Amino acid sequence: MPHIALNSAEPGIRGLLRYRPQTARPLSELCEVLLRGPGTLTRGERELIAAYVSALNDCRYCASSHSCCAAAQLPGGMAVVEQVRADPGRAPVSAKLKALLAISAAVARSGRDVTAEHVARARAAGATDVEIHDTVLIAATFCMFNRYVDGLATTAPDDPAAYAAGAHRLVTHGYLPSPPDPGHQD
Amino acid sequence: MPHIALNSAEPGIRGLLRYRPQTARPLSELCEVLLRGPGTLTRGERELIAAYVSALNDCRYCASSHSCCAAAQLPGGMAVVEQVRADPGRAPVSAKLKALLAISAAVARSGRDVTAEHVARARAAGATDVEIHDTVLIAATFCMFNRYVDGLATTAPDDPAAYAAGAHRLVTHGYLPSPPDPGHQD
Repeated sequence: MPHIALNSAEPGIRGLLRYRPQTARPLSELCEVLLRGPGTLTRGERELIAAYVSALNDCRYCASSHSCCAAAQLPGGMAVVEQVRADPGRAPVSAKLKALLAISAAVARSGRDVTAEHVARARAAGATDVEIHDTVLIAATFCMFNRYVDGLATTAPDDPAAYAAGAHRLVTHGYLPSPPDPGHQD
Repeated sequence: MPHIALNSAEPGIRGLLRYRPQTARPLSELCEVLLRGPGTLTRGERELIAAYVSALNDCRYCASSHSCCAAAQLPGGMAVVEQVRADPGRAPVSAKLKALLAISAAVARSGRDVTAEHVARARAAGATDVEIHDTVLIAATFCMFNRYVDGLATTAPDDPAAYAAGAHRLVTHGYLPSPPDPGHQD
């Protein structure tokens, strides 16, 4: 049961975004820019970083949701996501993505754990400065979302189909709230 | 030296906001709403939570900057900020703020560390649900900013006057970028 009385039965971050629209707006915009905006990391790679960090932080709602978003947009689908979550060093992803996942794991512990060696390894594998920047910010952002979602004890569905349906909406429509339907009066 | 080549010599978060305006916009809006928007926690109390969490995360830039912002807006000034950072349980702040600081420390460790007892204590001391919500989100947000700032190894000035000057700008003008001056052509 959530620690505070929300204004809906929506699980995880969805209940929090509905509860506090003032903060929902910049939080949703941040996700849209970081995870889906123009960039040279694919949307699948960016969602994979989000899923991996959320799993490291033991946030079931975010890890399940973003694993589905990554699986839907990554060659290899959920099998690759599960391999990354179990052992990123041996997963069938590029050397660049492995190096970026190592940076992400350091960020999840502490920003101070990201070393010059982490960054040199990513750069040697072809990562650009913007990709390194975005990796650090995606990892840091999910350290925020995981703490927000679990710190208020929001609910997390048990049914995997709930996450798949939510991921389908995010992959199709993105993170911004839908604009009001001009033909619909309520 | 920062891990990536920034496009300015600005320290800490300021260099990162200038480097990536796409993400700077929602990040700045989030700070403005959370730390300065309408709410029943004072601006000084909200900045104190930001400073306290940043100190727990050992982020010198954010802890110094937000300590100055808190000191400028809190009865008791920097002496109280320093007492909170050293030992919040014995600092001369309200029972409600002590309970919210305990929630913040839990969030800094993990969202899962916030217990029903933490929340009951805050509520018994007069905290509302929105105040508890905002405390968790401010603490989580600074777990993000601290990791972003340190994960990219941004610089932190040694001179305390640099933080005081930055805090003066934030307290006076807020977190949103200044609108362009309509009388100035460039």
